[in-house]
Amino acid sequence: MLQQLGKNAKQAERYLMTASTEDKNKALKEIAQALRDHAGEIIAANKIDLENGEKNGMPQSIADRLKLDDERIEGMAKGVMDIVALDDPVGKVLKEIRRPNGLKIQKVSTPLGVIAVIFEARPNVTSDAAALCLKSGNTVILRGGKEAIHSNTVIAQVMRDAVSRAGMPQDVISLVEDTSRESATELMTMNQYVDVLIPRGGAGLIQAVVKNATVPVIETGVGNCHIYIDKEADCDKAVQIVFNAKTSRPSVCNAAESLLIHRDIAPQVLPAIRKKLDEKQVVLVGDEPSRALDETIESATEDDWAKEYLDYKMSVKIVGSLQEAIGHIYRYSTGHSECIVTENMETAEQFMNAVDSAAVYVNASTRFTDGGEFGFGAEIGISTQKLHARGPIGLPELQSFKYKIYGTGQIR
Amino acid sequence: MLQQLGKNAKQAERYLMTASTEDKNKALKEIAQALRDHAGEIIAANKIDLENGEKNGMPQSIADRLKLDDERIEGMAKGVMDIVALDDPVGKVLKEIRRPNGLKIQKVSTPLGVIAVIFEARPNVTSDAAALCLKSGNTVILRGGKEAIHSNTVIAQVMRDAVSRAGMPQDVISLVEDTSRESATELMTMNQYVDVLIPRGGAGLIQAVVKNATVPVIETGVGNCHIYIDKEADCDKAVQIVFNAKTSRPSVCNAAESLLIHRDIAPQVLPAIRKKLDEKQVVLVGDEPSRALDETIESATEDDWAKEYLDYKMSVKIVGSLQEAIGHIYRYSTGHSECIVTENMETAEQFMNAVDSAAVYVNASTRFTDGGEFGFGAEIGISTQKLHARGPIGLPELQSFKYKIYGTGQIR
Repeated sequence: MLQQLGKNAKQAERYLMTASTEDKNKALKEIAQALRDHAGEIIAANKIDLENGEKNGMPQSIADRLKLDDERIEGMAKGVMDIVALDDPVGKVLKEIRRPNGLKIQKVSTPLGVIAVIFEARPNVTSDAAALCLKSGNTVILRGGKEAIHSNTVIAQVMRDAVSRAGMPQDVISLVEDTSRESATELMTMNQYVDVLIPRGGAGLIQAVVKNATVPVIETGVGNCHIYIDKEADCDKAVQIVFNAKTSRPSVCNAAESLLIHRDIAPQVLPAIRKKLDEKQVVLVGDEPSRALDETIESATEDDWAKEYLDYKMSVKIVGSLQEAIGHIYRYSTGHSECIVTENMETAEQFMNAVDSAAVYVNASTRFTDGGEFGFGAEIGISTQKLHARGPIGLPELQSFKYKIYGTGQIR
Repeated sequence: MLQQLGKNAKQAERYLMTASTEDKNKALKEIAQALRDHAGEIIAANKIDLENGEKNGMPQSIADRLKLDDERIEGMAKGVMDIVALDDPVGKVLKEIRRPNGLKIQKVSTPLGVIAVIFEARPNVTSDAAALCLKSGNTVILRGGKEAIHSNTVIAQVMRDAVSRAGMPQDVISLVEDTSRESATELMTMNQYVDVLIPRGGAGLIQAVVKNATVPVIETGVGNCHIYIDKEADCDKAVQIVFNAKTSRPSVCNAAESLLIHRDIAPQVLPAIRKKLDEKQVVLVGDEPSRALDETIESATEDDWAKEYLDYKMSVKIVGSLQEAIGHIYRYSTGHSECIVTENMETAEQFMNAVDSAAVYVNASTRFTDGGEFGFGAEIGISTQKLHARGPIGLPELQSFKYKIYGTGQIR
């Protein structure tokens, strides 16, 4: 059955690949309107998911993410309309080459094809991912978690009916209703139908995908983000940035998890940071030199340096040099976002060039690694791999390209 | 042992990632000179490989590819010097974004990291791949076939000594000397050390990599390339293009394998093509309508439509419309290169937009799908996947990117 779904998605891709911007926007507007019109049904289905969750002892934090109400559905519809307003990424001439033999070669952006998205509890991903894929000319196969299956099924059906009303094949959007582990594994290996797989979720999901997928994957999400406070840092900026990056939303991947401080500035800046973080009861764990400066810091283990806490907790290490900070980041970073706080722009450049992460900052919170904050309008996730897309995955990153070669009978 | 080699390569990448263009060019010049200086040793090692091959019944075509002489080694050295002359792809500002909050965001090209290249019998790939990776700031792990192990070992050692003389860590280039299947599989799953894997070889190697690799892969090479002769084709152009695309070098991936002809023009163009292909004794296999026009055409089986012959052989099918031609290509193409011959530019655009391949041509031979012919200077292969790189993989395709974000204390 999954094979048939894949085949249908691939078939629909032939249509969507060359669809006009107008047709795609018309379908997106239908989707937005349909989400509003069917809010009652969606909320009713979501209620079943929530009740099942309660029966099965779902943690409150997951139930919070799962829950849909009128306001959240209006947010989903608005998210779809935001994508209507974005520039169509398909068919851009990225480069034009004229060859001495008279050939004209155009490098032109094209959809990737069929994108499979495997995600966890948030049902709003269903409409977000579908709208981003549709606008970028890609058909989408959605595979959400079993906790949200009733919500996702209704949302997907509402969207399929909507694109159909707009004159598109409904298979440009499809949902895998089988939420077993087997169906996920099968989806990861359907090379004949799936061009790219994007997992959206925790470290466990990402690892399962990397291990089992034979289709090309864009890895997303895990962020063990570092902030390095250089000896020439402005202390006030350091305090504000650390506080914001750690506490403004600790559960997201661009939140800071680890703090490196140059030993020359540590006696001055660490107490100020500690004081500020106390406002949110942040737990600090650190190495011996940091604990010598602040006895409230707990002792860090080796595991702490590699940990993405996603909580009000942070590791602290005192370093003797820029090179030591870079070496530590090289060893423990997940390649998401890292920041240096310094007034010395030469030091900043050294740091930003040497650190091999998707986003490298000087004097700004790591929380800005986000499609909206970068001005992309929307994103389907944050890529932490180096192939194809890195950082926020917006509409242009959902494109491949082809070469169109115009000849007049040239042979080689 | 392979783990240690991977670790060393990753370590050397920290150096190479930020090396200057001058330092990289200096190392490349040392490599070119060293290949010339050590030609005698390389040829002696190659002789052992050739003798072993003869003992083991190596086919002549593979022995031809394996064989090195002074001229071929000079060709390798010249290939390295050509790469010295190419533009350094690292550190280009691809985009600059200014945000309302004052953040300046630069999207900057960066090396991919550690690139593993698995290849088969051609020892010249050793120096080609190493030079391309070095210039693009990537360390390379080379893993050639066992037929060429003596040649590759000497070439790799000559190159490692050369970069060392140029002041670089020799681990920017390394060779896996264990040519067992196990070592290949281990290399495909060394996610902690390998950023990208590029297989260069036949369909068997590519399939093994797609199936077993957990590291990101750029698929290369298999080309079931089609030429469609539209009803509004210029017959002379059609004859010349088919002859060139099929016979100028049948063993390569951009050679044409399948010919589709509109039924309205077939009676006129097929005899002319047949006559021209007879100069090279090309065997044609076809569907019934083509055989009705030319009784020398053998009957094609279903397998023929999907076949990459790499030989003086070609399949022929008569189609009733542009849409039928596109449908056939959609079904059987490997996504490499396809061509339409037509004088109607509207038909050409329809074909080029609908066909989902790396290179789509109007009125030119598919043989132009090549880094040199596209003006890229050099290539490490032809990508047939849609993620990251598509078509010839030149220096810019051997890059990832990062975002450098310049702040003045911004928080979110």
